[in-house]
Amino acid sequence: MVRVLEERGYAEADIRLYASPRSAGGRIRIGNHDLAIAPLNERTFIDLDLALFALEDDLAKEWVPRARERGIRVVDNSSAFRLDPEVPLVVPEVNGALLDARPPVVANPNCSTIQLVVALAPLARMAGLRRVVAVTFQSASGAGQPALDELREGTRRFLAGEAEVPEVFPKPIAFNCIPKIGAFDDDGRSREEQKMLAETRRILDLPDLAASFTCVRVPTLISHAVAVHVETLRAVEPAALLEAWSRSPGVVVGDGRDAAGIPTPRDAAGRDEVFVGRLRRETGVEHGLAFWVVADNLRKGAATNAVQIADVLLER
Amino acid sequence: MVRVLEERGYAEADIRLYASPRSAGGRIRIGNHDLAIAPLNERTFIDLDLALFALEDDLAKEWVPRARERGIRVVDNSSAFRLDPEVPLVVPEVNGALLDARPPVVANPNCSTIQLVVALAPLARMAGLRRVVAVTFQSASGAGQPALDELREGTRRFLAGEAEVPEVFPKPIAFNCIPKIGAFDDDGRSREEQKMLAETRRILDLPDLAASFTCVRVPTLISHAVAVHVETLRAVEPAALLEAWSRSPGVVVGDGRDAAGIPTPRDAAGRDEVFVGRLRRETGVEHGLAFWVVADNLRKGAATNAVQIADVLLER
Repeated sequence: MVRVLEERGYAEADIRLYASPRSAGGRIRIGNHDLAIAPLNERTFIDLDLALFALEDDLAKEWVPRARERGIRVVDNSSAFRLDPEVPLVVPEVNGALLDARPPVVANPNCSTIQLVVALAPLARMAGLRRVVAVTFQSASGAGQPALDELREGTRRFLAGEAEVPEVFPKPIAFNCIPKIGAFDDDGRSREEQKMLAETRRILDLPDLAASFTCVRVPTLISHAVAVHVETLRAVEPAALLEAWSRSPGVVVGDGRDAAGIPTPRDAAGRDEVFVGRLRRETGVEHGLAFWVVADNLRKGAATNAVQIADVLLER
Repeated sequence: MVRVLEERGYAEADIRLYASPRSAGGRIRIGNHDLAIAPLNERTFIDLDLALFALEDDLAKEWVPRARERGIRVVDNSSAFRLDPEVPLVVPEVNGALLDARPPVVANPNCSTIQLVVALAPLARMAGLRRVVAVTFQSASGAGQPALDELREGTRRFLAGEAEVPEVFPKPIAFNCIPKIGAFDDDGRSREEQKMLAETRRILDLPDLAASFTCVRVPTLISHAVAVHVETLRAVEPAALLEAWSRSPGVVVGDGRDAAGIPTPRDAAGRDEVFVGRLRRETGVEHGLAFWVVADNLRKGAATNAVQIADVLLER
């Protein structure tokens, strides 16, 4: 998030860094200086215009209201407020109009959901959505730095013939695919699949959308990919959707080098856009289309989207 | 295939090995002996009961008819005859009755298709299929030994910070996902997606089945996984499908250790069964179910299925 703030022109002098007392004390380089990370406490919220929170849900529930009480605008990355009717859930390219009212707290959506709705929104506007099936290929970084370390170290050990020790993931992730991201509910849906359903419906403002998800952790480091199979209410030509995508801010058709190129997680890593490709008609189904969406889950799936929201709230 | 023949009780004395003149001359260990690989030529087909072919399509088109002319039964692993109306396309657990007529040539299906139809067939019988969406997670071994080497070596280089040199795959496969398996047709479907559609319809004897596929190469070594979202014609309880799977030969519910365990590619590697898990109801769609299927693409997806067919043809 600090990198994205810098890239988008926030001055070093305008940034303050806070963390829990356990994590405070470190430093993060901004511009030419190492900025100290101060402990988060009640006095934190003095003289701030806006706070970008990247906390676990339980800490967000505690600290977001405190910031709000002090009149500080908040963009919250946790899932604590994403379904709160008082808090808009925003992807600027899709429902950025919700920011016109300058809401005091805005929730930043789930990473896989952001890239999916950026690709789906133009199609929803053109032809309406009757049914969506989305299967994700999610990178280790979505589970944080320890997960990234576990993938790298597990891979090294596997290649060296040494025993792996899964701690973050329920099974070894090296050269493996694990279709479990978060706990299962009574219906057998994982937490990530529940989030994608609820947040996709909310962001697209389609509360009854028939949408199904399988979320899978794959041995990639950065960027999530989503295979999407969709049926629309009205007929739509693939060429018309390609045209709509090419006019959509933040969407790249192709892999970033070639409009016909197939985007992969490694193509999207380090980029702020959502990459779409492999658009084709479905077989044997009315108004069916399939496509492939890739984005950097740490950037457009998290930091970039949050800072885009902050830009609007701060009227930059 | 030689390993599977051995495991299934074929005697060393009953096996002959042949390869193109370029590959002949090597040896493969069977039992306590290294069996020589002889060059494939017209004289090969003397004194044989059955030939198991694992050739490229163009070579299969040349050599399968020659074997057949000599009265030798053939199980062919290529895709050359899979859609030939004269040649049954068989997964013994699904449409093994086609072998009752002792056909002279039998085609062995595509790897991903085999595991998909083994899982789908009990559901098709119970409730009928209205619509299938399947997204695959296919291992490097599906593209042969050079592809496996490229994944291992590419991974090593990536971790060492060295440049990768993709030759088998169109982009680096290490820590990446590539949604392109085979060439694209004019409609944008990859060869693998075309195969899965045509072969699934043929094996299930549902020539108009509305089925859609996205086939993706992932950085795993062995075993393919498939995320399946299906709508049936009639209502079906998940518990009833679980019960049907548990009675189906060659199907394991769970990961092989625990019926509630989630099967992953590494769980299935080296196993002959098809593993199913994550069964759940779909959201907002009538008679919708989703599940996850994993199998060793080199075994049930190729060698094991072929040798199962040979067993029947040889009345073993």
